[in-house]
Amino acid sequence: MHDSLENLIRRLGRLPGLGPRSARRAVLFLLKNRDRLMLPLAEELHDVASNVRACVECGNLDITDRCSICADNRRDRSRICVVEDVGDLWAMERAAVYRGLYHVLGGTLSALDGRGPEDLHIDRLIRRASIDETAEVILALSATVDGQTTAHYIGEKLTNLSLEITRLAHGMPVGGELDYLDDGTLAQALKARAKLEL
Amino acid sequence: MHDSLENLIRRLGRLPGLGPRSARRAVLFLLKNRDRLMLPLAEELHDVASNVRACVECGNLDITDRCSICADNRRDRSRICVVEDVGDLWAMERAAVYRGLYHVLGGTLSALDGRGPEDLHIDRLIRRASIDETAEVILALSATVDGQTTAHYIGEKLTNLSLEITRLAHGMPVGGELDYLDDGTLAQALKARAKLEL
Repeated sequence: MHDSLENLIRRLGRLPGLGPRSARRAVLFLLKNRDRLMLPLAEELHDVASNVRACVECGNLDITDRCSICADNRRDRSRICVVEDVGDLWAMERAAVYRGLYHVLGGTLSALDGRGPEDLHIDRLIRRASIDETAEVILALSATVDGQTTAHYIGEKLTNLSLEITRLAHGMPVGGELDYLDDGTLAQALKARAKLEL
Repeated sequence: MHDSLENLIRRLGRLPGLGPRSARRAVLFLLKNRDRLMLPLAEELHDVASNVRACVECGNLDITDRCSICADNRRDRSRICVVEDVGDLWAMERAAVYRGLYHVLGGTLSALDGRGPEDLHIDRLIRRASIDETAEVILALSATVDGQTTAHYIGEKLTNLSLEITRLAHGMPVGGELDYLDDGTLAQALKARAKLEL
């Protein structure tokens, strides 16, 4: 195999979700669709790499310094939803259930990975939460040990500001079966049980 | 999400092995590794799309009209191994057990997909097999109905040439367990049983 093909396969195989085998298949598929897929993909990768940047306010990815969500005056500016990374922000936006602002932390605190508060955008969050129009900070972090440690850390930092600090509910996933729930989720779902609405 | 990101995710998600979800993860991963991964990948995709072509003799992919295998005089030019596509050729080369030439058909005959002999590089194979130095054509095609139909079709086309026509052996995969073999493979493995070498 020519070096250029081997290098391309090796590089594609470093993407999450692709190994060497699927990278080889992907390259053959790309070569069969050069004009329709391969060349446009090369161009888009180059353009996105050159133009997309993190929003100076919330950390969302966009092609402007201030992202389209932060710049959108129809959004509810009294709420800030704190997420770990941009993928989580995208998930919230896909669900289309939230019309406030975001704040991308850039990860969670992690003793194991040696990530401390200075590695996350926590100071910037406190600055944003301190302005008068902010009424609520929603901590939409993972229900993992690191995620919850981070939520508590941020909660304490914000506690002397006069705003509501909330977290996402724990419970059964919609469509989930009780039989498959882990004990922790089941316990949380029972504890947070709500009145049946008839 | 900005359109440029959405388009990139959509295009990446069309690769085999990547869906929308893993395409999103891949794009975030790429954006975190712009200089080390994203920009080189864009460049390599562009270069490979522009430079890699099918060998005029065997159909292998390379950056020259005649591929490095066809041009390599140390290879055994008396044997031609017929494969469905370049991925199969790569698999043979990785195994490093064959030192002859190749011929890439470009698929198999398929009544279902409406692929006839004129859609495959069969004429070119017959031309290559007709020259004097060719002594053996190895049909390394899939052990599927379409693969075996194609093998028989090609076998009949070559039958009046004075050369050996062989196919890959059927049998147990090395490392395979008898319990997991399908009946067809088991039957073939029994039929083709060989004397134990002590």
